[in-house]
Amino acid sequence: MALVVQKYGGSSVATAERIKRVAERIVATRKAGNEVVVVVSAMGDTTDELLDLAHQVSPLPPGRELDMLLTSGERISMALLAMAIHNLGYEARSYTGSQAGVLTTSTHGRARIIDVTPGRLRVALDEGAIAIVAGFQGVSQDTKDITTLGRGGSDTTAVALAAALHADVCEIYTDVDGVFTADPRIVPNARHIKEITYEEMLELAACGAKVLMLRCVEYARRFGIPIHVRSSYSNNPGTMVTGSMEDLPVEQAMITGVAHDRSEAKITIVGVPDEPGVAARVFETVASAESNIDMIVQNVSTEATGRTDISFTLPKTDGPTAMAALGKVQEKIGFKGLLYDDHIGKVSLIGAGMRSHPGVAATFFACLADAGVNIEMISTSEIRVSVVCRDTDLDVAVRAVHDAFELGGDEEAVVYAGTGR
Amino acid sequence: MALVVQKYGGSSVATAERIKRVAERIVATRKAGNEVVVVVSAMGDTTDELLDLAHQVSPLPPGRELDMLLTSGERISMALLAMAIHNLGYEARSYTGSQAGVLTTSTHGRARIIDVTPGRLRVALDEGAIAIVAGFQGVSQDTKDITTLGRGGSDTTAVALAAALHADVCEIYTDVDGVFTADPRIVPNARHIKEITYEEMLELAACGAKVLMLRCVEYARRFGIPIHVRSSYSNNPGTMVTGSMEDLPVEQAMITGVAHDRSEAKITIVGVPDEPGVAARVFETVASAESNIDMIVQNVSTEATGRTDISFTLPKTDGPTAMAALGKVQEKIGFKGLLYDDHIGKVSLIGAGMRSHPGVAATFFACLADAGVNIEMISTSEIRVSVVCRDTDLDVAVRAVHDAFELGGDEEAVVYAGTGR
Repeated sequence: MALVVQKYGGSSVATAERIKRVAERIVATRKAGNEVVVVVSAMGDTTDELLDLAHQVSPLPPGRELDMLLTSGERISMALLAMAIHNLGYEARSYTGSQAGVLTTSTHGRARIIDVTPGRLRVALDEGAIAIVAGFQGVSQDTKDITTLGRGGSDTTAVALAAALHADVCEIYTDVDGVFTADPRIVPNARHIKEITYEEMLELAACGAKVLMLRCVEYARRFGIPIHVRSSYSNNPGTMVTGSMEDLPVEQAMITGVAHDRSEAKITIVGVPDEPGVAARVFETVASAESNIDMIVQNVSTEATGRTDISFTLPKTDGPTAMAALGKVQEKIGFKGLLYDDHIGKVSLIGAGMRSHPGVAATFFACLADAGVNIEMISTSEIRVSVVCRDTDLDVAVRAVHDAFELGGDEEAVVYAGTGR
Repeated sequence: MALVVQKYGGSSVATAERIKRVAERIVATRKAGNEVVVVVSAMGDTTDELLDLAHQVSPLPPGRELDMLLTSGERISMALLAMAIHNLGYEARSYTGSQAGVLTTSTHGRARIIDVTPGRLRVALDEGAIAIVAGFQGVSQDTKDITTLGRGGSDTTAVALAAALHADVCEIYTDVDGVFTADPRIVPNARHIKEITYEEMLELAACGAKVLMLRCVEYARRFGIPIHVRSSYSNNPGTMVTGSMEDLPVEQAMITGVAHDRSEAKITIVGVPDEPGVAARVFETVASAESNIDMIVQNVSTEATGRTDISFTLPKTDGPTAMAALGKVQEKIGFKGLLYDDHIGKVSLIGAGMRSHPGVAATFFACLADAGVNIEMISTSEIRVSVVCRDTDLDVAVRAVHDAFELGGDEEAVVYAGTGR
């Protein structure tokens, strides 16, 4: 008997009909002899509707109350899902994040999980019930207030429960069949990936692949929880995220896939004094505005002026706050001006095999040049190369890279089998 | 500095606009130097919409999950209300029933409050915040599962919190200006009642006056909490429910008002063997079906047959269950048949002064006879006379009684001032 944690996103439970369908899938897993814990998001657009209500009563709602409000979304979906399972003759009990023992920090809206004490879930499983848990939420260990985990919170809840309950697998149900070598909407012959390492998945997620959130993959890697990404609309095999690069076979394909990201903006700080400590002050300012910086480029300073330019990228949503924070310190730091550019795109090539193939970056830049894509910023890791370009060039860039590394194929191909470079 | 508990019903918080208006009223109470605890119901039709969703996924949803589902309604309204108060510059913190320390029995859908441990509310008040509490809900002391209190649950929550916090008054905001000598929709010259005793209010509530629920008044009397019934749409003075009959002045008016009830049905058990213990078995059966019996009449048995008829009234909603339960025991108890009549109405005259005026019942029956209303059942208490009639006669009966006891008046009159009988 295995212990399976399943997570269903908001679109999988958007209507009463879909909830009943999800209930059937859960019962099938239970019937197959497994213990089942289910993490569920709020139905469809519920969260957006609640946010809309909040902004009708207050332009800047306090975080504590916003979390109290938003957590009602999962409360609704989890109770309905438990009812639908009962109706199929199986016992199901729903639990809030707090009841399920999801203890978090007290940062409302983006709390982090500190510990999971799933005593009540364990009792429910021991008594033969299916446990349904509200995703995205927990309770602050210090203040006992209700918290939410922010974007990707339900995936993280699922992985955290899987770790705490020593589950055999964490199945993340979504609206796609798993992970592909590129976004199939941009690259029609993108190939399905059957198996991928945590490290590769981390890079894909960090570079804009939306199928799994970064923090959820980080959590899974830390506790060694295999994640199975599957579609809630099909019975296709999906993608297993598991193992580390050290366990990969030698014949391991070099390249995993191409990711892209339209969600970032670029801030350029013009005429920064080229003196020790100035860059540190700039980024301390941005960090204190709670903005997450991605790529950073500093121009070579011209000796004549003793000044340089610094550019960095960050999520568009953090843009206005970061600009305001930097504006305040302009005089003190002594730079000349600030530029904001939210028409950029990022394309990244990821592959564990890249480590031992120094020619990859060269091929990557060459194919972009051939496609007429101008490169504005570059960043690399051991298993990734990323560039920033105009957002209007992004689709062309993704297709050019995907083609250059021969990642495409016909439908039955999977990425580890084919790319023989 | 007084401690005020306020309760706002679903229609008072039905939209974002109304929530903002309620927030202003709460802030005004706080500004006047009071500590404020607010109990709030779910917005408008939320509970019905959630029930509808539940029935879309399951024809017979389990009580535990139904309670989990329905309690999301208050979670939404209380968080929004707290946000609206923040927006006016005052601190407000919302608490679920569980967080507010409302401990209940584990009977889902109709739990009873066992104890209230309002430690977190007391801390919030001490820190200068306004505490917003979800009405209608609590947490089972035994199972730690979320429970709901059933009809009138939010009023009861408010009174229970007022008792636990030693509040000076519990204000119940509703959509009418308080308690009247009769329903103004039936009796246009019904008079507003400025002050009423718990006992009279209990009888009014038990007899169909909808302004306050019975259990809430019972709770208030037990703990001596004054209830102030007010309209959330006006600044009119409302009705104070307080004190006991013993404290009433000697010149106390004899009659308080006329109540009516269309929500009951009558079951008649035909041909019951007139033997000791049979009636007990009948009512044990009804009680085990969790039906609440109101009035009971047993006919005089005819010596020839040795059988009699027993009639009783109960809420229409309990009718089908009670009929089914009685049907099952027909053979065992040996009665001949069952009749179900849901076209009855009940009119009641209530007044603390009635105790020392034996002529009241006679006047009551005479005026009904004059109005051509046929009396089907009678029941009395120390301060009440009730009769059952056809539902089609009910409005006529209410007006006849209200006139006969000269309860009407012009708008500025209040009930205790005028009726000089």
